[in-house]
Amino acid sequence: VETNRVEAFSDGVFAIAITLLILGVVVPTSERGRLGHDLLELWPSYVAYGVSFVTIGIIWVNHHEIFRQVGRVDRTLLFINVLFLMLVAFIPFPTRVVADFVRHPGDRRPAALAYGITLTVTALLFNTLWRYVSGKRGLLREDADPRVVSGITRSFIPGVPLYAGSTLLSLVSPIAALVLYGSIALFYVLSSSLFGRDEIGEAAA
Amino acid sequence: VETNRVEAFSDGVFAIAITLLILGVVVPTSERGRLGHDLLELWPSYVAYGVSFVTIGIIWVNHHEIFRQVGRVDRTLLFINVLFLMLVAFIPFPTRVVADFVRHPGDRRPAALAYGITLTVTALLFNTLWRYVSGKRGLLREDADPRVVSGITRSFIPGVPLYAGSTLLSLVSPIAALVLYGSIALFYVLSSSLFGRDEIGEAAA
Amino acid sequence: VETNRVEAFSDGVFAIAITLLILGVVVPTSERGRLGHDLLELWPSYVAYGVSFVTIGIIWVNHHEIFRQVGRVDRTLLFINVLFLMLVAFIPFPTRVVADFVRHPGDRRPAALAYGITLTVTALLFNTLWRYVSGKRGLLREDADPRVVSGITRSFIPGVPLYAGSTLLSLVSPIAALVLYGSIALFYVLSSSLFGRDEIGEAAA
Amino acid sequence: VETNRVEAFSDGVFAIAITLLILGVVVPTSERGRLGHDLLELWPSYVAYGVSFVTIGIIWVNHHEIFRQVGRVDRTLLFINVLFLMLVAFIPFPTRVVADFVRHPGDRRPAALAYGITLTVTALLFNTLWRYVSGKRGLLREDADPRVVSGITRSFIPGVPLYAGSTLLSLVSPIAALVLYGSIALFYVLSSSLFGRDEIGEAAA
Repeated sequence: VETNRVEAFSDGVFAIAITLLILGVVVPTSERGRLGHDLLELWPSYVAYGVSFVTIGIIWVNHHEIFRQVGRVDRTLLFINVLFLMLVAFIPFPTRVVADFVRHPGDRRPAALAYGITLTVTALLFNTLWRYVSGKRGLLREDADPRVVSGITRSFIPGVPLYAGSTLLSLVSPIAALVLYGSIALFYVLSSSLFGRDEIGEAAA
Repeated sequence: VETNRVEAFSDGVFAIAITLLILGVVVPTSERGRLGHDLLELWPSYVAYGVSFVTIGIIWVNHHEIFRQVGRVDRTLLFINVLFLMLVAFIPFPTRVVADFVRHPGDRRPAALAYGITLTVTALLFNTLWRYVSGKRGLLREDADPRVVSGITRSFIPGVPLYAGSTLLSLVSPIAALVLYGSIALFYVLSSSLFGRDEIGEAAA
Repeated sequence: VETNRVEAFSDGVFAIAITLLILGVVVPTSERGRLGHDLLELWPSYVAYGVSFVTIGIIWVNHHEIFRQVGRVDRTLLFINVLFLMLVAFIPFPTRVVADFVRHPGDRRPAALAYGITLTVTALLFNTLWRYVSGKRGLLREDADPRVVSGITRSFIPGVPLYAGSTLLSLVSPIAALVLYGSIALFYVLSSSLFGRDEIGEAAA
Repeated sequence: VETNRVEAFSDGVFAIAITLLILGVVVPTSERGRLGHDLLELWPSYVAYGVSFVTIGIIWVNHHEIFRQVGRVDRTLLFINVLFLMLVAFIPFPTRVVADFVRHPGDRRPAALAYGITLTVTALLFNTLWRYVSGKRGLLREDADPRVVSGITRSFIPGVPLYAGSTLLSLVSPIAALVLYGSIALFYVLSSSLFGRDEIGEAAA
């Protein structure tokens, strides 16, 4: 009961951030008679929309998982959660930057960097949230299963290094980094669906 | 209890996607003194807004119906649901494409195709969602009424063929396809209201 | 329990429609050094934002009141509610039209008409919703107080005539009509707060 | 139970207003090859996004705190809450004004004033809300702890003077005022996290 309103507020921000992504897919306004061509040219926007939608979806699933273990909320947790949501709600911005600039070689690197930095900081704050919840006495539910708790802890280990590594990679090859961002999301969904929980696939985000 | 947060998150995405449709009805900015004329000229935007609003509303009603039968949620279901919501949240984009281009003969076909493809994939994912729920042991509520379950299964049969057919029709006659998209929504609402549940009218979406 | 998800979805649409109004208050982009002047010139946007925000707020309060009397939801009610929400979510559009065009005498009439028609149809659908709920056996809660029910019915009588009349008035004097839209909202809030429920002030919306 | 729907609606508005802030961070459209530079130039947008996100987050936390003490809702409370939400949902507008104009000396003062006035009125309405809740017999929960109630009252005292003072300061030094808006948010979060509830840090908002 105690945690209901935090979850509802968080879910609201998740749902809005994920749905606002569509505003980054901009209806073409070029001259008439070329709509078919223009819609095909928009493919980076569709891909960026898909990758960010799935990525925010993954983060939401994991946030869900964390809060199922939470029994009590204090003000520090509320504020860590607000900072974390601040990053989640920011994701539509670098998503659109990547979609708009990925085809221009001179702008690809800063676009990939902006996306990677955003997701790395998101992963960092997500880890902070979980460490605070699992580390402070009295926040976890009394009946929380220690194996589930340590399973979550383990599954969150690869998230920050993966995104930080991809971000660094974008300095060398922005395209490789962008492919990696998409692959992390894809791999996570597939492995999570195919092998169930507590597999390495749960690591991202 | 278990399914509450999935439903709340889904409802959030539905509610935002349906409300964002209004951003596709763009306030005229032409020279002054012509507002009356410009507002009338916007009729394709009003029609597109109405059809997509009702269509998303229908999908929401049916999603509601599915989740009333769900007793337990696993991660695969969560991810199918995220993919499904990704399509629902995409609908405002082809809606605006249709509204902006329907009066230009050379652009009508790709506009009608974009709308139809989006709804066909949405219907496909909706069917996938229901098949997963109804096919995997332990996800349906233990007290789910088998007649309701098979009624839902039956009522979802025509959705994909109807939208796929309309999409193909748009290759021949985009206008006929657009009229059909609107008619499906209208027919569904009318028949569902007039004849109640489990009629053929429940098929769409 | 049964009505929870309808209310949650409706509240979502209300909350988003009311918050999207801010997108109609457009940040000035004129040359630098004139921001103070430009912000003051935006007063019609502030007034329109305020009037529509309060109006949607009133509608939400009354929707709340209706659903407190509802015990069971059927599909027809769901679809009437979807059509009603379609009008509520449309309000940001005429709001912005009024804000953008109120200072241009030649465009004032269609702007006031667009606003009035939207609110008249909203009031009509709201009445339809309540008539359906209160008229069909088995939708009201079994313990619904008949005095509350007839009080709601009585309080909804003036809504449609008031908005229809204001809309007609806009043919003669658009400014008088706009002042009236604002006064209805103001009067409703004040009388409702000062005299409590079931006063004539509850009529609007 | 009685207060659930008010809280859900309020949370919806909070969640949407806070997430819409990202629409104020505008993707650069200047010539190609300068994206890196352009993204760095956007720093005022990032800072404004962060400060307003945290500020709305603080207001949400406090709104949460108030409604935990509320046992019953009347129509006057509903309307005060609507007016209060009207201000919260307005915050994205002055946020973007500040972000767009902070680097132009001639426009800095009106930008800082617009931001300060919005937050001062928000704080005023928030106080009105709490005074109405705590002052009228029968709205507080019967088991509300008097120490918590007077703690909340005490903690809300500095909010209005702080924001009103910062707003006045912006007449003399807009930059100092903007720094102060950010510092209030930062101080509140830090002190609230470090020292727990009922400290002076709870004052803002």
